[in-house]
Amino acid sequence: MDSINKLINIFRNFPTVGPRTASRFVYYLLKLPKQDVDELIFAIHELKNKVKLCVSCFNPFEPFDTAQGRPAGELCPICSDNSRNKNLLCVVEKESDLLSLENTKKFIGLYFILGGAVATMRKEDVSQLRLEELKNRVKENSFSEIIIALNPTPEGKATSVLIESAIKETAKPPAPKITHLAKGIPVGGELEYADEETLESALEGRK
Amino acid sequence: MDSINKLINIFRNFPTVGPRTASRFVYYLLKLPKQDVDELIFAIHELKNKVKLCVSCFNPFEPFDTAQGRPAGELCPICSDNSRNKNLLCVVEKESDLLSLENTKKFIGLYFILGGAVATMRKEDVSQLRLEELKNRVKENSFSEIIIALNPTPEGKATSVLIESAIKETAKPPAPKITHLAKGIPVGGELEYADEETLESALEGRK
Repeated sequence: MDSINKLINIFRNFPTVGPRTASRFVYYLLKLPKQDVDELIFAIHELKNKVKLCVSCFNPFEPFDTAQGRPAGELCPICSDNSRNKNLLCVVEKESDLLSLENTKKFIGLYFILGGAVATMRKEDVSQLRLEELKNRVKENSFSEIIIALNPTPEGKATSVLIESAIKETAKPPAPKITHLAKGIPVGGELEYADEETLESALEGRK
Repeated sequence: MDSINKLINIFRNFPTVGPRTASRFVYYLLKLPKQDVDELIFAIHELKNKVKLCVSCFNPFEPFDTAQGRPAGELCPICSDNSRNKNLLCVVEKESDLLSLENTKKFIGLYFILGGAVATMRKEDVSQLRLEELKNRVKENSFSEIIIALNPTPEGKATSVLIESAIKETAKPPAPKITHLAKGIPVGGELEYADEETLESALEGRK
């Protein structure tokens, strides 16, 4: 296979990328000045060498420089930020969900990245989740509230049930309050385009 | 800026990629085994070092191995394929359009990649196109037919007019027949969803 098709095949494995987009990426790189391509390669190197997962929430982050003899931190900037409310935990499926919530600047607690959501309770599916890590986190801390912020999809719902019972099993008394994100009409959305389940949730959650 | 955000910013410049997709790419790379990341970097290196543009149609291609003392070819596999009809030229906007047409396996002529389409006749826009290269190609060959296969968009239409007159100016007699791709209802499409212009074209082109 020539290098064009080899790279197209690699890009096809990127999330959301189909064969057409993959070849557009390759044509884009072909036209890109050498300096920009070098920068891309350097940034990928840096990403793989410098970034690690926070031992507490599993968010990827870049530890502080160790040049000054300080040991690299094991905790991400959110987990090591003393101004945040450490009694509040928000469980999300993936890194980008954490980012979306952070961007609202309205959540001052801590996070836990579960690593996905599962449609079935089969062992091989469930083992993909950081369920044991979540249990340990809950066991070792006394949260007053745990927000389950998984997607309102069938997988998200099934996984919510799973982790809710896992939390109840492991949490030390007093048991943390377990809450879920509100479901309803998205802001700017219109009733006539909302599906029945969303409308039902919007009605139930009215206040 | 940390390496996560640096790489997100680089990916945001890729075609069709927004901030959300860019961060998904970065999280994907973070999870990818080191070996696969090395393969990606190697493939990008190979692409930039091995691929060159065909001097005739400007399609990127990988010249044959020069290990056996043969000079690397200046022509892509399509342009150097003697079984193709060299009297037939098809002008497309970009590389992926060439690929789409090749995938039909119904076109046996040669191509010319114009490098885009322009909305205005401003000099700085027009200079982005390979207009001089197209003129030279037309001057040095005697095509019996030139198919203008630009997109049926406003830019494509404006550019078609431009290159049609450029071809007429430069082509040696006998003048090549200039044709355009048919416009109409896409196969599998439905009349009720077609816009007026498409329907008009479909009516005009009926046979």
